[in-house]
Amino acid sequence: VRNLSRAFAFAALLAASASAWADPQDTIDYRRHVMKTMGEQVAAIRMILEKKAPADNLAVHVAVIAATAPQAKKAFEPQVPGGNAKPAVWADWADFSKRLDSLVAATDELAKAAKGSAAAVTGAKLQALPCQGCHETYRVPPKAPPK
Amino acid sequence: VRNLSRAFAFAALLAASASAWADPQDTIDYRRHVMKTMGEQVAAIRMILEKKAPADNLAVHVAVIAATAPQAKKAFEPQVPGGNAKPAVWADWADFSKRLDSLVAATDELAKAAKGSAAAVTGAKLQALPCQGCHETYRVPPKAPPK
Repeated sequence: VRNLSRAFAFAALLAASASAWADPQDTIDYRRHVMKTMGEQVAAIRMILEKKAPADNLAVHVAVIAATAPQAKKAFEPQVPGGNAKPAVWADWADFSKRLDSLVAATDELAKAAKGSAAAVTGAKLQALPCQGCHETYRVPPKAPPK
Repeated sequence: VRNLSRAFAFAALLAASASAWADPQDTIDYRRHVMKTMGEQVAAIRMILEKKAPADNLAVHVAVIAATAPQAKKAFEPQVPGGNAKPAVWADWADFSKRLDSLVAATDELAKAAKGSAAAVTGAKLQALPCQGCHETYRVPPKAPPK
């Protein structure tokens, strides 16, 4: 009976996620919205570090990235290759999701430090976030360099 | 002496803000990053409300918008028309900035409600945010419909 109810629970789970992610293109679009959010905020931080914009929002930019990072994990859960995501995301899900967890932890830590002092956010700290390594492994390289 | 030191202080302020916003294009790029951040998160919320994505991140999406809204005020401070911003932004700065303040207040309130229950975020609530009215008045209409 326990196995049976487990099977039912699993079927219900499948049905629920099928209804929430009806269309593969929706899944791709949704995760793109999440990743672009982080991209825009990282770009804003880069501008501040390059003295192209004032630093007033710096701590908030980091806080927004820290709040957005956990969205990514949910967004990548459905196994739908496409967009810029390589199939390796799901083939190596344990590694990929571990990297997302470390992104969440690292951005959270940096956000806390930035709240204390905006000077905590440096180019080196930004570079140390696990963005690039993950992109190199799991993202189809963008055709044009990102703005 | 007081006037002189005030004059110096003002000159220093000008020099500081000139160095922080050296290039008008930087100003335009920076505020674009901020506005696009909100756009991506609003698009994610729309997908959830349309049942195209699961609701797990709903409260966090609203929280991210609430955290990003105050960035916009700083981003629009320099009087640099261009991008999608009409000159009216600065001609009617009192109205524009009041609208930004009400966006901050409204998103903050919705974020608090969403944290209590994701059901608080409805299409009507999203529609009630002061986005569209402000865009209609102060934004050059996008050529292609936004994705």
